[in-house]
Amino acid sequence: MKNLGILLSGRGSNFEAIAHSVAAGQIPARIAVVISNREDAPGLARAWQMGLPARCIPSQGKEREAYDREVVAVLKEHGVDIVCLAGFMRILSPYFIHEFPHRILNIHPALLPAFPGTDAQKRALEYGVKYTGCTVHLVDEGVDTGPIICQAVVPVRDDDTVETLSARILEEEHRIYPEAIRLVAEDRIRLEGRRVLIQPRLPAGE
Amino acid sequence: MKNLGILLSGRGSNFEAIAHSVAAGQIPARIAVVISNREDAPGLARAWQMGLPARCIPSQGKEREAYDREVVAVLKEHGVDIVCLAGFMRILSPYFIHEFPHRILNIHPALLPAFPGTDAQKRALEYGVKYTGCTVHLVDEGVDTGPIICQAVVPVRDDDTVETLSARILEEEHRIYPEAIRLVAEDRIRLEGRRVLIQPRLPAGE
Repeated sequence: MKNLGILLSGRGSNFEAIAHSVAAGQIPARIAVVISNREDAPGLARAWQMGLPARCIPSQGKEREAYDREVVAVLKEHGVDIVCLAGFMRILSPYFIHEFPHRILNIHPALLPAFPGTDAQKRALEYGVKYTGCTVHLVDEGVDTGPIICQAVVPVRDDDTVETLSARILEEEHRIYPEAIRLVAEDRIRLEGRRVLIQPRLPAGE
Repeated sequence: MKNLGILLSGRGSNFEAIAHSVAAGQIPARIAVVISNREDAPGLARAWQMGLPARCIPSQGKEREAYDREVVAVLKEHGVDIVCLAGFMRILSPYFIHEFPHRILNIHPALLPAFPGTDAQKRALEYGVKYTGCTVHLVDEGVDTGPIICQAVVPVRDDDTVETLSARILEEEHRIYPEAIRLVAEDRIRLEGRRVLIQPRLPAGE
C-alpha cells in the first residue's frame, strides 16, 4: 500500500474522484494527508468531512522554497510516497520536485503539449480545435511540461461554451487521474526518454 | 461543381485519396489541375497516369513571390476555386494567400496546435503524447496556424515507431482531407473568430 499526499487550493473535485477510487479499492494506496494552501478551500472541508487527515498550510506571503519545505516536512511526517496535485495553484520549487523524484503527479485540462498554463479550456475553444482533453503527467520544473502518464480525448462541439466543454473534460479528468495514480502506485510506469511506457500487471501473488 | 487545384512536391498520397473521392462522387468538385514544384515528384506521374491536367512549375532558384505568381496564374487559367496542398514543401507568400482567401487547405500530421512544422510524428512520439492525429486547416501566413476544419485522433502505442505511427496517421489523413474539401466545396464552413463551424447540409434541390 502506498501513501498518497493530496495538495489542493480549491474545490478539489479531482481529490474527491481519487478518494472514491481509493475507498472502492481500485488503487493500492491510502490517502495519508490532504494539504491546502488556503484555509477556505472547499476541498479541505470535504477532506475533514471524509475523516481524512487534512490541514491548511497557508502560503500567503511566504517565499516559494520556504513554503515548500514546510509542505514537504508534513508530507514526510505522514510517510507520503506519491504526491497528487489536485488544483494546487502554485508552482513547485526544484527543492520539492527533487524530494519526490517521479512521484509527483498533476492533471491538466488539455491535450498537452497544447494549451499549457491557465485557461486551457477557453484557449482550446477559441483556437478552434476539434478535439481537446486532459493529461496526467509527472511534474518537472516547467509548467505542464513533464512526462505524460495518461491522456483522454474530448471532442469539441460547435455549440460548446467554456462551461460545457470544461464540464465534459472534468468527467474525463475524474476517470484518468485515479487510473494514472494506480499505475504509479503499482510501480508499472517506466520512462524511456520522456515517454512513459506502461508495464503489464503482474499476476496475483508475484 | 468547384474546381480543385492540387499542389504537391512528392508522393502525393493525399492527392490520390482526394482523386478517389472525387472519382467516387463524394466531393462536388473536379480536379482542374495538379501542379508540382519538382519534376521528379511521383505524384506528378500519377496525375498524368490518371489523365488529369498536370504540370511541373520548377521552384528551384526562384524568389518566393515570383514563383507564387507563376503558380497562381496557372491555377486561375484552370478556373481553380479551392487550392489543396498535398505535401507541397513550400511556404506560400502573402500574395498567394490573398489571391484565394479562405480557399487554400493544408493537412498536417499532428493535432495542431501541437507539433507544427516538420517531423511532427517523430516529435509527438518523442514527446510521449498518448494521442496524436492529423489536422486539415485553412492556410494563413503562419506555419500550420490557420483555422482548423477537421481533425482526427490517433492513439500512440507503447511499441510504436515513427513508421508505424506515421502509417496510422496517414490512413486518417486520407479519410479527413476529402471530408474537409467536401465541406469547403459545399460552402458549409463559417468562421467565428478562428473557429470553423460547420453548417448543416441543405436538403437536395435547394
